[in-house]
Amino acid sequence: MTTSTSPSGHLTSDLIALDKSAIVAFARRFDPQPYHLDADAAEQSIFGGLCASGWHIAALATRLVSQTLLNNGLPFVEMTSVSHLTWSRPTFVNEKIGVRITLDASLADSSIAGTYSQTLEVDVCNDDGAVVATMTATAAIAADPTVVTAP
Amino acid sequence: MTTSTSPSGHLTSDLIALDKSAIVAFARRFDPQPYHLDADAAEQSIFGGLCASGWHIAALATRLVSQTLLNNGLPFVEMTSVSHLTWSRPTFVNEKIGVRITLDASLADSSIAGTYSQTLEVDVCNDDGAVVATMTATAAIAADPTVVTAP
Repeated sequence: MTTSTSPSGHLTSDLIALDKSAIVAFARRFDPQPYHLDADAAEQSIFGGLCASGWHIAALATRLVSQTLLNNGLPFVEMTSVSHLTWSRPTFVNEKIGVRITLDASLADSSIAGTYSQTLEVDVCNDDGAVVATMTATAAIAADPTVVTAP
Repeated sequence: MTTSTSPSGHLTSDLIALDKSAIVAFARRFDPQPYHLDADAAEQSIFGGLCASGWHIAALATRLVSQTLLNNGLPFVEMTSVSHLTWSRPTFVNEKIGVRITLDASLADSSIAGTYSQTLEVDVCNDDGAVVATMTATAAIAADPTVVTAP
């Protein structure tokens, strides 16, 4: 069991914008559905407009989480598991998203050498403050910050 | 409640290869850690080699799941939630991955109009058959297949 301690309370990231080219590029590779690829098809779809793949949102949320943890002295290594992930509404072109992170106070051992496990409650919000996705995930955090630094 | 029925049993996808350029391109955008970006840094890292972001694996798994469901008469619309996702080992450059899908027999209502919810147990395996990730997810499946077809 590590002796590392976690900052208490909540952390909030910056917002990042989701532009059309990024939504389409992600969808072409991973989620090639018409409402992620083509504005006209999307307008006629059940979502009513071009919107990002849910996995695009999850991946961007992880980037925001890792940056926010690093900025707060927690050297993020990788997500190791997710126990809950729900997409509650589509994220449309030019919406911005950010994350609000609640750190679980109890830390656990990790299967990755040199790291410990930190449970995170993550709300992904748009620029109006509406929650677009929620996730409970466990991240491996380096016990020694230098192991996540490139030589 | 929909009257759609689900094919029973297990479905298996094709394998797709994870090359270095794809791993690095995904990581630059979403998970910029040295073990996902630079072969030399990765060899000296806790993972011992250049490996894909876990979210890259999850996104590719979703692509394989959607293709496999469509090929089996289930018009995939989108994942709506994940109740379990664990990455059990890294996926290194030039490994291939595929999915094995077990369809839950019970179907439920979905929050997306015109769809029903299908729970899926997904094993993501490499070309040696080793499980690299497991996921339990709920997918929205179109009750009417034409709604997922671009005009």
